[in-house]
Amino acid sequence: MGTFIGHISPGLAFFSFGVLYAFKFSLMVLRGEEIQLVSHSRPPGLRSCLKRIPAEGVMKIVYGTLAVMAEFFYPPGVYKLIIYNKEKPDYPFIHPNEWQHVTMYSYFALSGWMDIISQACLPRRLFLLENIAITLAFYIEALLLYSHMHGKERVENSVHTLLLLACFLVCLILTVEIWRPNDHVLWFTKTCLVMTQGTWLLHAAFILYRPFTGKPWKSDDMANLMFVTNFFCWHVALNIILVLAIFSLTALWHRRRGLAFQEVKRQVSFHLKSADGRGLPSEYSKLQAEEEETRLLQECDP
Amino acid sequence: MGTFIGHISPGLAFFSFGVLYAFKFSLMVLRGEEIQLVSHSRPPGLRSCLKRIPAEGVMKIVYGTLAVMAEFFYPPGVYKLIIYNKEKPDYPFIHPNEWQHVTMYSYFALSGWMDIISQACLPRRLFLLENIAITLAFYIEALLLYSHMHGKERVENSVHTLLLLACFLVCLILTVEIWRPNDHVLWFTKTCLVMTQGTWLLHAAFILYRPFTGKPWKSDDMANLMFVTNFFCWHVALNIILVLAIFSLTALWHRRRGLAFQEVKRQVSFHLKSADGRGLPSEYSKLQAEEEETRLLQECDP
Amino acid sequence: MGTFIGHISPGLAFFSFGVLYAFKFSLMVLRGEEIQLVSHSRPPGLRSCLKRIPAEGVMKIVYGTLAVMAEFFYPPGVYKLIIYNKEKPDYPFIHPNEWQHVTMYSYFALSGWMDIISQACLPRRLFLLENIAITLAFYIEALLLYSHMHGKERVENSVHTLLLLACFLVCLILTVEIWRPNDHVLWFTKTCLVMTQGTWLLHAAFILYRPFTGKPWKSDDMANLMFVTNFFCWHVALNIILVLAIFSLTALWHRRRGLAFQEVKRQVSFHLKSADGRGLPSEYSKLQAEEEETRLLQECDP
Amino acid sequence: MGTFIGHISPGLAFFSFGVLYAFKFSLMVLRGEEIQLVSHSRPPGLRSCLKRIPAEGVMKIVYGTLAVMAEFFYPPGVYKLIIYNKEKPDYPFIHPNEWQHVTMYSYFALSGWMDIISQACLPRRLFLLENIAITLAFYIEALLLYSHMHGKERVENSVHTLLLLACFLVCLILTVEIWRPNDHVLWFTKTCLVMTQGTWLLHAAFILYRPFTGKPWKSDDMANLMFVTNFFCWHVALNIILVLAIFSLTALWHRRRGLAFQEVKRQVSFHLKSADGRGLPSEYSKLQAEEEETRLLQECDP
Repeated sequence: MGTFIGHISPGLAFFSFGVLYAFKFSLMVLRGEEIQLVSHSRPPGLRSCLKRIPAEGVMKIVYGTLAVMAEFFYPPGVYKLIIYNKEKPDYPFIHPNEWQHVTMYSYFALSGWMDIISQACLPRRLFLLENIAITLAFYIEALLLYSHMHGKERVENSVHTLLLLACFLVCLILTVEIWRPNDHVLWFTKTCLVMTQGTWLLHAAFILYRPFTGKPWKSDDMANLMFVTNFFCWHVALNIILVLAIFSLTALWHRRRGLAFQEVKRQVSFHLKSADGRGLPSEYSKLQAEEEETRLLQECDP
Repeated sequence: MGTFIGHISPGLAFFSFGVLYAFKFSLMVLRGEEIQLVSHSRPPGLRSCLKRIPAEGVMKIVYGTLAVMAEFFYPPGVYKLIIYNKEKPDYPFIHPNEWQHVTMYSYFALSGWMDIISQACLPRRLFLLENIAITLAFYIEALLLYSHMHGKERVENSVHTLLLLACFLVCLILTVEIWRPNDHVLWFTKTCLVMTQGTWLLHAAFILYRPFTGKPWKSDDMANLMFVTNFFCWHVALNIILVLAIFSLTALWHRRRGLAFQEVKRQVSFHLKSADGRGLPSEYSKLQAEEEETRLLQECDP
Repeated sequence: MGTFIGHISPGLAFFSFGVLYAFKFSLMVLRGEEIQLVSHSRPPGLRSCLKRIPAEGVMKIVYGTLAVMAEFFYPPGVYKLIIYNKEKPDYPFIHPNEWQHVTMYSYFALSGWMDIISQACLPRRLFLLENIAITLAFYIEALLLYSHMHGKERVENSVHTLLLLACFLVCLILTVEIWRPNDHVLWFTKTCLVMTQGTWLLHAAFILYRPFTGKPWKSDDMANLMFVTNFFCWHVALNIILVLAIFSLTALWHRRRGLAFQEVKRQVSFHLKSADGRGLPSEYSKLQAEEEETRLLQECDP
Repeated sequence: MGTFIGHISPGLAFFSFGVLYAFKFSLMVLRGEEIQLVSHSRPPGLRSCLKRIPAEGVMKIVYGTLAVMAEFFYPPGVYKLIIYNKEKPDYPFIHPNEWQHVTMYSYFALSGWMDIISQACLPRRLFLLENIAITLAFYIEALLLYSHMHGKERVENSVHTLLLLACFLVCLILTVEIWRPNDHVLWFTKTCLVMTQGTWLLHAAFILYRPFTGKPWKSDDMANLMFVTNFFCWHVALNIILVLAIFSLTALWHRRRGLAFQEVKRQVSFHLKSADGRGLPSEYSKLQAEEEETRLLQECDP
């Protein structure tokens, strides 16, 4: 939707994904985890399958499907699920913006389904498949953004060109990640760019539909075009700072968790000793202590 | 030919190649086969040479030569094998579209000849040579498509730009494949893109010459340009689904073949036992059984 | 600042960085040193921290901050730290050039802070972080240069396009250096390009504001545009020769230093012998000699 | 020079380099030779230095210097070694085409000097340096070609765009060769592209200055632009066939030389035997035979 809310909602979606990525990749770096393109086999069964459904995939599907619905049926009473206008004599196409948005959102929803199928349903997780699906979604977004700009005002085009730039860089990074999935620099560059796409869409909504000064940006004023790029550069800086903040927070939390873990260990060894002291057979007490340790650790790190 | 049939026929050609690739690469993945840039030497002789002639090469030559003929002499009575119009005073060039098409088709036909020479005639298969020939054909196609767009309507240009995009991506992938010929992601991306080129050419024929609504697409309507990109994105999705379907079918067939193979083995071992049981010398019966097994397997997997 | 001095000052800054790089990388090649992405831990403490502050980082901060100040408050009496012109009815943006320059300079200053944090403050030097910061600064410069060209004269655009070309190539090289930090070809290409950016900005100041012939370059004269490119090509050659000269000088100095070093060693061994001759316990004299050698070497190679 | 001869002469130069490369790389492939970025040290002395002067380097210098002279002083009586026209009031630049050509040719001449310095004068051959010099020459050519096209007719621009395409691809290949100097595919692609540049310049001279039909190509006829691309595609095919022919010829010559070599060996061993038969001490005869063998081989393979 070429409206205020039509730019705010995808902006929030991209931003939330960026934040999710920032936490996820920070934790992976701190724990020294790596992505495996084809992982080990997993226990079958519907229950363990449902347990494995990833938040990211569900988010993509919910966001994508809601956005598709909104394009066609929002605000209530509207019905745009038609391509041809049959009332006019030469059957012109109508709602081109809506159909382009729907196509975009559908690809992201599809990528969500692929995440769920790969992470929950298949006997082995095929990370490669998930990666290709999300890469494709961003490429389609880039292609549609590019053709989205025909016949628009210069300020609007400038805003969308910068969005396209961020989107295209994400495409490039995702393409490289198909072959190098464990590069930390790529992880965080991707995160920053997705977050920038989000905050930039939020800002774009205000530039195009609710300018802060209350006056619409004139397209023939060169200063406007130059400030658009300028603002985008500030968004980049802001999002980098945000990612650094999230990484620091996660590192702090991770260290605390590490300390809590050591505390648990200390207590367990104390129990062990006292149990030993109470004259129980040491063999038994050790087994018991290990069980207790396992339980405590599970409580602490679910 | 800038006609309906002139877009339908190369569309079908590209699509059939895409389908052929889909089956070929699915089988290669399932069997764990790999391409060797320079293979082992082969038995000489005209007969074994003729046996080795590849279907792909013959298809390229037949399609290419027919298309060249059609450009010059179709519909019957037409004769376009001339470059200069000698009747006009300043000898202007004529039939530029036809000559560009002919150049394109000739390169694909040449790639077919190179396939046959490398796979059938040379003492060793030079996969590298075949790869370079087909890569060159796609680069020439891209270059000609690019210069094909001078002085055309916007809708036609938009359609051809998207075709050029698919073609150029195929070029890039083929270039990378010269050095990494066994990358599965590249195999299937290439397959999808070639199929998309095919189905898009089929669709383009209808958009440009037989629109479904019966009214020609107006070039000054921005909605038309936006829907062209939209349709292309749907073609990509459709072709990906088609490739997945072909892979699943091949996997099913491959598993059945595997089961049939095991069945053959079981029968053979049964024969062996019964032969043993009939009191024949076990040495003799084993040899016979092995021969029989080989024969059965050859029947089953020609 | 779109003034003579506003092009001379960043020109000098880039040129001085180029010269610094030329000396630094020449020495590193001659000494066989390599960059380590994550180095060993260092002694803590404020004093050793202050000692480690790198000249390059301080230069970046000083240049960047001065440039930002100059944009807003130079010439004295000027105050440009405002974005909106509140006196006009529709609040138009003002000073777009100044704000773009400020953004550019801030990123370079930030890269300087990152250098200092990484090289002096952190327990380990994170070369990767420094590299990303400077890469980002050049990418932002490229983006702003690109949008800087809206609505300017052709000669000015031509000059800035060539600057953008040099800047973009630096971006590409820096990006590759994130993964290959020790490639000598990349080191010196980067050095040449940064120096070319510098000398080209100096030349640009004269072309745009003080042409040598005293007459402004006309934008509608095609010969002017062709000579702009021509001059740029000569700058490239000049800077390559300059880099070669700096390398040769450094090599000469390095060899002399090497000879001086051997001289020191010779003297030390002479002292050692004479000390031995004086009848001192050889164990003691050796220790003393080693201390002396260390002291002499430190004097010679601080 | 924007004249017939000004396009024929660089065309011949590029073509002759292409042919030289074709022979050189064919021989290297057949002999299994490899390029070493930094080779072993060589005997010093002026005489051995002069012996090592490479034909390629001399060719570059001679061609380059002659072309520079021709730009300034050809046809006789012309003197174009001036930049400013001091007779007009605003000192406009003159001879922009000539100065661009001179810049281009100078870089190629410089690359020739670098070849000679590296291959003949330095204590070790620095292949890297030669490679960088020629790469730079082609990049400068591309940059100047790009800016060469301002304000020209469409047919002329189309011709130069295709030349730029070939030149830019050579740049890319040379850049990759800095890190992968021994890739056979790159060797022959480069050869073909350099030859295509040559034959295309020859053809361009006729298109622009002496059209075969005797009538100049009209710039507003779209068919002309399409045929320009078409002809370029045919040049590519022709040059590939030429390279294949040169490779086959070299292979034939190489095999003959191999047979001659074996013949020499057979004769030598015959001499050896007969010498042995003549009752000479076998120790002496062996030495003599080895000397003779060496002499014969040197005659056969200078």
